[in-house]
Amino acid sequence: MFKATVLYSNPENPEAFDRYYAETHLPIAHQIPGLIKLEQTHLLPGPDGSKPAYHMMAELYFAGPGELQNAFGSREGQAATADLANFASGGVTVLVGSVS
Amino acid sequence: MFKATVLYSNPENPEAFDRYYAETHLPIAHQIPGLIKLEQTHLLPGPDGSKPAYHMMAELYFAGPGELQNAFGSREGQAATADLANFASGGVTVLVGSVS
Repeated sequence: MFKATVLYSNPENPEAFDRYYAETHLPIAHQIPGLIKLEQTHLLPGPDGSKPAYHMMAELYFAGPGELQNAFGSREGQAATADLANFASGGVTVLVGSVS
Repeated sequence: MFKATVLYSNPENPEAFDRYYAETHLPIAHQIPGLIKLEQTHLLPGPDGSKPAYHMMAELYFAGPGELQNAFGSREGQAATADLANFASGGVTVLVGSVS
């Protein structure tokens, strides 16, 4: 399996981020063709109460590298990528790789 | 489910890192009590050949926050954490959170 991981840096307004992500972005992301699984991890502060390195992590699983490339080249994939500008005010780090 | 994600920054010697991880660290990590799933993602360079933000990602799944805390407090969890100093020369970023 192949996976794209989106690490969302801490946004200006976490509550607005979470609401937009759940209500607007997630339905758009679920339209991406070839998407096998989409997993979110809501990150917690450290034991000392410090902010986590990232606010949230989204992981999109595909059958292989070709399927992942096709997915992000598709109209739906481009719509999901373009939508990031509407809520990911802290910026994103994207990681792509093979899962084992 | 609860998950600990270990983001390994690019090490000095990627080949030595990969070998040590597979042959030595992974067997130690698999001893951690309560571990439901351990998934590795080997990260690829960007489309322009640039280094990825991290070399590798390891994700450890547990039933809940209590199980995760017990796991890393256990003798086996502490051994796995201590072993990082033997190969993770680029350092690690650890993220903990609830999966949905």
